[in-house]
Amino acid sequence: MTPIDSLPTPSHSPIIGVFDSGFGGLTVLKALLRQMPEARFLFLGDTARLPYGSKSQRTIARYAAESAQFLVHQQHAEFLVIACNTASALALDAIQAAVPVPVLGVIEPGAAAAAANSTTRNVLVIATEATVQSHAYAEACRRHGLRGIEKACPLLVPLVEEGWVDHPVTDQVVRIYLHELLAEARQAGQTPDTLVLGCTHYPLLRPVFERSVPAGVRVIDSAEATAMQAARQLGILPTPLNPTADLPQGHVRCFATDSVEKFERLGSRFLGLPVGPVSLVDLGG
Amino acid sequence: MTPIDSLPTPSHSPIIGVFDSGFGGLTVLKALLRQMPEARFLFLGDTARLPYGSKSQRTIARYAAESAQFLVHQQHAEFLVIACNTASALALDAIQAAVPVPVLGVIEPGAAAAAANSTTRNVLVIATEATVQSHAYAEACRRHGLRGIEKACPLLVPLVEEGWVDHPVTDQVVRIYLHELLAEARQAGQTPDTLVLGCTHYPLLRPVFERSVPAGVRVIDSAEATAMQAARQLGILPTPLNPTADLPQGHVRCFATDSVEKFERLGSRFLGLPVGPVSLVDLGG
Repeated sequence: MTPIDSLPTPSHSPIIGVFDSGFGGLTVLKALLRQMPEARFLFLGDTARLPYGSKSQRTIARYAAESAQFLVHQQHAEFLVIACNTASALALDAIQAAVPVPVLGVIEPGAAAAAANSTTRNVLVIATEATVQSHAYAEACRRHGLRGIEKACPLLVPLVEEGWVDHPVTDQVVRIYLHELLAEARQAGQTPDTLVLGCTHYPLLRPVFERSVPAGVRVIDSAEATAMQAARQLGILPTPLNPTADLPQGHVRCFATDSVEKFERLGSRFLGLPVGPVSLVDLGG
Repeated sequence: MTPIDSLPTPSHSPIIGVFDSGFGGLTVLKALLRQMPEARFLFLGDTARLPYGSKSQRTIARYAAESAQFLVHQQHAEFLVIACNTASALALDAIQAAVPVPVLGVIEPGAAAAAANSTTRNVLVIATEATVQSHAYAEACRRHGLRGIEKACPLLVPLVEEGWVDHPVTDQVVRIYLHELLAEARQAGQTPDTLVLGCTHYPLLRPVFERSVPAGVRVIDSAEATAMQAARQLGILPTPLNPTADLPQGHVRCFATDSVEKFERLGSRFLGLPVGPVSLVDLGG
């Protein structure tokens, strides 16, 4: 495999480390590639210890800090994107304390995108159990003058991983979750006009959500907002690709802590192109 | 918390260590308690690293060996029951090599119970992805003169953990999985009369399976068979409790590697009685 620093890229293009507990974060990498097709990317999926979404803050912070240190100290990443809502919600401080480079999570850009869209200032957020319990989205929404109602949807990640992204069972599960969430909003006297997909697996269900939300509710995911924010922080003028253009493939190197075969097989579904050979990493977990 | 060896129990009653990646194995502990109400039990759920079902053999073997060593070396278990189909399928040898006490998995007793039931000698097995990929059930069936067809059902564990054990979505998912499995059996010219629930979460869905299987197919889970085999190996005359009798509660101590609150909350669903205070253990993962 070609070492990332010998790839034929201008030497000033930054090395961006992207980290997730699994491969869902590849939806964020996809958005980053579209915004910054000239950058070089390292992606680490801590697949031996996924999912983070059902674990405690202490455990998530330890796993995430170890993963960040691998990308920065061993792979020389100069900028980190935490492409995992759970780690962004529960471990951003721990990661920032663990490495000497800028670290960007997905929660704040997601809330900022919701603020830019919402006129009623009432926002719905769906995410994993741990992200919801942290109330990180509700707090980020509050900072943007929004009222956010959050709901954990633990069946959606397994449904995506089962490949049931266009399936009547998934439609039904999404309708049940949305029904419960909208009932809660109604009871609180809110009129939400924005639904934030607060988990990196959910963009694959975007069509299901778009046909299931009431008229007037816009579905946004934080991946695009995070990619634009990363470009701004890196001082890179975004050169977004046409959505139908092929993604550049040469500037990505992937690592996983377990089963590279499964990563290679499922990862391409999330990235929208083959993830290439994946290197196995032992983080001691 | 009362240390297990100061519990008021005859000194000759063995200390049985029961291990699972999560709390599903509490369905096996429940069966053990019914068979051997006088024994003392230690239960370890490696919840910081669950689920094992989607991980590789190497990783599962390492996690399981560490957990077994904790139960034997630090908690003085004299007999181990691996109440996790995935660890039994992929790591039984590694666990037996790691500790100096007898180790019993759930696969072999499950296959033996299927053999005792089946007259057509054709058996269906549903389990996690890793258990199915290992073909441990198919091989155990073959040793008993059975032909086993296995199927991974990755949505069932999340559905149980969401609490949707009596829910139309779960009924639908079970029907879809069974339909696919029966079609495969038909194509292979088989006439199965037995369905083995090869995952410790599945006994909670037993009523769903019983109303979904074709007439003449009997649903069995390996928990009871494993408990009877453990009693035999320990030389204990089984003194099974009446199924409606209250379970004895004093002789169980639980450990978890993550979030004891979640363990306490969900665990009682599987054990059928409060799991009591759970001790947090750090296995270094």
